[in-house]
Amino acid sequence: MMNFANLRIVLVGTTHPGNIGAAARAMKNMGLNQLVLVQPARYPHAEATARASGADDILAAARVVDNLNQALSGCSLVFGASARRRNLAWPELDPRQCAARAAAVSERGQVALVFGPERSGLSNAELDSCHFLVHIPANPDYSSLNLAASVQVLAYELRMAGEGARSKEDTVADDEEIPAPAEEMQRFYRHLEQVLTEIGFLDPANPRLLMRRMHRLFNRARPDRNEVSILRGILSAVQHPRRRGGRGAV
Amino acid sequence: MMNFANLRIVLVGTTHPGNIGAAARAMKNMGLNQLVLVQPARYPHAEATARASGADDILAAARVVDNLNQALSGCSLVFGASARRRNLAWPELDPRQCAARAAAVSERGQVALVFGPERSGLSNAELDSCHFLVHIPANPDYSSLNLAASVQVLAYELRMAGEGARSKEDTVADDEEIPAPAEEMQRFYRHLEQVLTEIGFLDPANPRLLMRRMHRLFNRARPDRNEVSILRGILSAVQHPRRRGGRGAV
Repeated sequence: MMNFANLRIVLVGTTHPGNIGAAARAMKNMGLNQLVLVQPARYPHAEATARASGADDILAAARVVDNLNQALSGCSLVFGASARRRNLAWPELDPRQCAARAAAVSERGQVALVFGPERSGLSNAELDSCHFLVHIPANPDYSSLNLAASVQVLAYELRMAGEGARSKEDTVADDEEIPAPAEEMQRFYRHLEQVLTEIGFLDPANPRLLMRRMHRLFNRARPDRNEVSILRGILSAVQHPRRRGGRGAV
Repeated sequence: MMNFANLRIVLVGTTHPGNIGAAARAMKNMGLNQLVLVQPARYPHAEATARASGADDILAAARVVDNLNQALSGCSLVFGASARRRNLAWPELDPRQCAARAAAVSERGQVALVFGPERSGLSNAELDSCHFLVHIPANPDYSSLNLAASVQVLAYELRMAGEGARSKEDTVADDEEIPAPAEEMQRFYRHLEQVLTEIGFLDPANPRLLMRRMHRLFNRARPDRNEVSILRGILSAVQHPRRRGGRGAV
């Protein structure tokens, strides 16, 4: 079942304080309470408080942080909201599918839903931190939802899933490990980047595209802690080979 | 299937013009365009236009009428939105059930969704004109949604019903690459096993468990051909480092 205490809404670079307040209200209406703000343009602000209506406790408890990595600390599953379909092969879910997956993981781990700035949405670099992209179906001629409206729709689906409307498909088996938290993945990616540079595979002058591909690949795999520690063990062994055998033995 | 041209949103006695604008935006985002206003407190109003954003055509075409009966003229099916469960024996649906019924009727008749004033909601007399009451599931301690947020949720469910509520889980986007064929994955795993042995991470006497874990991890990621070729390039670079930089340079 859905554990609402493990659900986190992350608003990145929000321009209009009114949207922050309205998002807080939508969250509280649907039973969510963890709000994290990454570099909001104007906050705190009277308009945020006004639009929050009776949800000012959500605002008061909101964390304001400097970057997305801080916002995602401790999260095992991260969804990025996106208004438009991108030409990238990101796994894309609709809000209902998103809620089903969130429900399953929320039983044992933190889940974040990330929303970008009103005009531009999340950057590709920010999407690199997301396991899935969530797309709210919309009129193709006018597809850009208001930020708080997007939060409302996703929070509503979380509520519906929490009240038992979920289709069984997306549940996680009991013996399945939950994905490693975001900061462990960050350390893994840094280690990977270092090793790829050392072996001359990665050009430090232009690391971006390769690392983005690696993010996408491993985000799809959603490795658990055990697997991350094996991967890091492999990276260390590349740096300090024990050369137990094989043709490269010294 | 849903006929969006037969769907009508009716706002009764709306107090805040901003909510009318935000509702219009939510409607247009979801593909609805018939808006009827029953005795709005302040309308037209600059705040309505501002919040409508690009949906001012919905506002421009909105009908303003004196009473609910006029608003419901020609409607075959009427839903009344209600924040709270009433002690009345009204047939109550959740938004998803509402959308399913609306879809069926919209093929041949007009369907209206009616929303009351912000503070008080629909009166019992107004509910008399409704076939069903629609209740958006909410936090029992804070259940009163913003008016435009309620319109957004119901319009979203109408859209989902219109798109056929595709529950095919992880649909593959047209431009997404299909996973690499099995024989390429086999070559990758053999290459991986060889390198892991060479760097002394894998004990050739007992390779099984580690390679099984690697299979599970990469099966979840379902790499495409491009990604497999990158991974194999990395393995080759481990075997024959170009040592472009980094601490291990020779």
